[in-house]
Amino acid sequence: MLTFDPICAIATPPGAAGLAIIRLSGDSCFAIADTCFRGKTSIEASRSHTILYGTFWSGGQAIDQVTAFVYRAPHSYTGEDVVEFGCHGGTIVAHEVVQALIEAGARHAEPGEFTKRAFLNRKLDLTQAEAVGDIIHAVSTHGSHTAARQLMGGFTRRLAELREKLLELCGLLELELDFSQEDIELIDKTVLAHRIHEAREYCLELASAHRSSEILRSGFSVGIVGYPNAGKSSLLNALLGKNRAIVSEIAGTTRDYIEETLQIGSMAVRIIDTAGFRASSDVIEVAGIQLAETLLEECHLILVLNDSSEGAEHSEPLVRSLREKFSEARVECVQTKIDLLKASDTLIPTLLPEGEGQDFMTLQKPSPSGRGLGEGLYLSVKEERGMKELKHFIEREAQSAVQTVSDALINARQASLLTQAASSLAKAREAVQMGASNEFAAIDLREALKRIGEITGEVWNEEILNSVFAKFCIGK
Amino acid sequence: MLTFDPICAIATPPGAAGLAIIRLSGDSCFAIADTCFRGKTSIEASRSHTILYGTFWSGGQAIDQVTAFVYRAPHSYTGEDVVEFGCHGGTIVAHEVVQALIEAGARHAEPGEFTKRAFLNRKLDLTQAEAVGDIIHAVSTHGSHTAARQLMGGFTRRLAELREKLLELCGLLELELDFSQEDIELIDKTVLAHRIHEAREYCLELASAHRSSEILRSGFSVGIVGYPNAGKSSLLNALLGKNRAIVSEIAGTTRDYIEETLQIGSMAVRIIDTAGFRASSDVIEVAGIQLAETLLEECHLILVLNDSSEGAEHSEPLVRSLREKFSEARVECVQTKIDLLKASDTLIPTLLPEGEGQDFMTLQKPSPSGRGLGEGLYLSVKEERGMKELKHFIEREAQSAVQTVSDALINARQASLLTQAASSLAKAREAVQMGASNEFAAIDLREALKRIGEITGEVWNEEILNSVFAKFCIGK
Repeated sequence: MLTFDPICAIATPPGAAGLAIIRLSGDSCFAIADTCFRGKTSIEASRSHTILYGTFWSGGQAIDQVTAFVYRAPHSYTGEDVVEFGCHGGTIVAHEVVQALIEAGARHAEPGEFTKRAFLNRKLDLTQAEAVGDIIHAVSTHGSHTAARQLMGGFTRRLAELREKLLELCGLLELELDFSQEDIELIDKTVLAHRIHEAREYCLELASAHRSSEILRSGFSVGIVGYPNAGKSSLLNALLGKNRAIVSEIAGTTRDYIEETLQIGSMAVRIIDTAGFRASSDVIEVAGIQLAETLLEECHLILVLNDSSEGAEHSEPLVRSLREKFSEARVECVQTKIDLLKASDTLIPTLLPEGEGQDFMTLQKPSPSGRGLGEGLYLSVKEERGMKELKHFIEREAQSAVQTVSDALINARQASLLTQAASSLAKAREAVQMGASNEFAAIDLREALKRIGEITGEVWNEEILNSVFAKFCIGK
Repeated sequence: MLTFDPICAIATPPGAAGLAIIRLSGDSCFAIADTCFRGKTSIEASRSHTILYGTFWSGGQAIDQVTAFVYRAPHSYTGEDVVEFGCHGGTIVAHEVVQALIEAGARHAEPGEFTKRAFLNRKLDLTQAEAVGDIIHAVSTHGSHTAARQLMGGFTRRLAELREKLLELCGLLELELDFSQEDIELIDKTVLAHRIHEAREYCLELASAHRSSEILRSGFSVGIVGYPNAGKSSLLNALLGKNRAIVSEIAGTTRDYIEETLQIGSMAVRIIDTAGFRASSDVIEVAGIQLAETLLEECHLILVLNDSSEGAEHSEPLVRSLREKFSEARVECVQTKIDLLKASDTLIPTLLPEGEGQDFMTLQKPSPSGRGLGEGLYLSVKEERGMKELKHFIEREAQSAVQTVSDALINARQASLLTQAASSLAKAREAVQMGASNEFAAIDLREALKRIGEITGEVWNEEILNSVFAKFCIGK
């Protein structure tokens, strides 16, 4: 096992709670811990995997009663000697513990540095390290479970199989090269081309899971837009069941944007309430609208709220321009404030139910001859009509956006490497099909293998590690 | 040791981080833990104070790789058998662990229930339990250290000494009563009255530390008010060093209020930026102003920002009405946007420096004959002038508001009991001085002792415990 200089960091989130954990790992970390800790026995004298109880001292002041968790190398998360201190939660004490450990000789850990050491000590590979990050940042059970399978080696095994197949092909090609004088063919070229093609398809299939992985990772994003006073903030509050946004009858109330995540089924849904869209000379509004457009680029679904009392087609120009601008997203119009419509209103003839079963969401219904309405989402937050249907609609959209991702959350790094591997495999196949010397195909296969090795970290350099671990939180 | 039904809860704050800890305590908690945990050895078979490594299962799905910390009764926080699971941070996994433990037979813990059990098992007294809460919620090192001293028994010892003294006096009085036929005086009545008086003074002294304790506990609160467009949000952003509030040149931009805590020295300072004060028909503004008044009631210092370009006395009516309304707070006027003043401006003759040393804070300077200005705080956020002086001013105010609180953070409950004890002691002293029968003084002393016993929990009932532990966070 490798041992590096001693590092420490708070491993639990900030905030008031019962417990906070401070992690210390590396060379002479037991001695460092003992300068601050007073218990019945010293940490240095304790066996691995034991828990001590005592007082934590900093600058002559006993700052808390703590537990010390002792892990001896190599039986720790990092593979080094590790001490974890459990102190009372809240930010002050935990920071003081870190400060005291730094004064005693440790330094503050970089983001992901503990996990980086675990990788360097072969406690886990890069896909597993990335799974740790995904579990930590998971916003849905669906995403968390997938990351757990990745942590337990699901993705590692898939890549190992792929790698083995490619190594076999590569071995055959190189063996043929050795016997090139004798013109021996160890593998039929058509079979070889087909196998390479299969491997390429597999790489692309894995890479294509990136988009749905992202939704599992960060949540399905729903943007709420509409002209001022269309009821955006009211809808957000109704969805979240609390008064997050100030709601008023004055247009343009929401100037900051508001983003909240809620759970619908096993999915996480990010709801983004934007500033009202309108031609405005009001500088705040304009700043808000620019912000909104940036936010909408991330959205998978954009709900355009239309105040139905202003006419059902009032927001048509907005819907059209959003569909044009954000072609990757689904843009749907929601008719709001339907409680304001009079029964005599001919605008939406099928809309106002005669007191029973008729649903407010009639999305699948064919468009009537009327004024282009009749299909769509109808809502009255005030009278609590149509909310259930809207949530159901969002959930179905979210689920259909998540392809079957079983045991890996493909991130951008992995997807990029898989795509590179696929393109090397395409070249290899072309070389084989063109009857070029085995040498060329072998080089391309080796290149693909190298990319796959970078995914797990079998092949690595400082740059690769930095790109992986820089995204980690400190303390992990 | 008492053992209750098994309870569980997340003990770390919510949020993305390396680790989350889930605590499980009570009857058969090892068996419950073993239904979810798979490691080399079972939890049931493990010794106290050992750490196991394994996989946590829920509904046939391995949801994370975890550590299990095993504590056997009575050597645990609660005094019961306890298992703590360390899983990867983030909200999803931790919640799933709790859910699985509940399905296996535990129930979700009430706020403070673990500490309540620790109290019932005499692991700590009520002042120590309250210190735990104070450490967790500490917003300054000063407050945290004081609470740590209380946790380690500082306040307990003070009260024990007080109790002992009163018990001695009580004993003497009651002994005299036994010999009342013989008319023996075991203690001189003047000495007795004096001792009771001393005890009463001590109770009142402790009780009076409540206000400064509250500042140590919650921070020193500074309200920022002013007519619209006086530069409140700009000042807040400058104090915090980030863009928390939207700043614009349009009056009335801040509609929600904004509160942030920053550290100045060892003190925590809560800065509260309120909606602009003005006579307004705008319903949002009015709602904001009502909110602001409620917030200002909590403030120790109120800074009235005055746009100096509108005239130095522009905000005088506001300052006057605030001083009247919030007489407990210090209300100070801050002249803002001094960069807009022309050099020729006669408004603040001594204000604009000739390019050197002259400070913008000239608080101690005698008022000139001018227009009532010349003392006060002067600020240009734009030109970064006067900020250091303003922070220094706030820090001095905060420190002077904190009396010497050494080893106890007196809370409202304790202060109220101390005041009640003091009033019983006053009665006892009066009885002694009036030459009444010892009986009366003894009853009053016993009453005072009971109140003091309630502080530590020597005397307790369900209601007392509930009032203490209901304020705790879940998981503690």
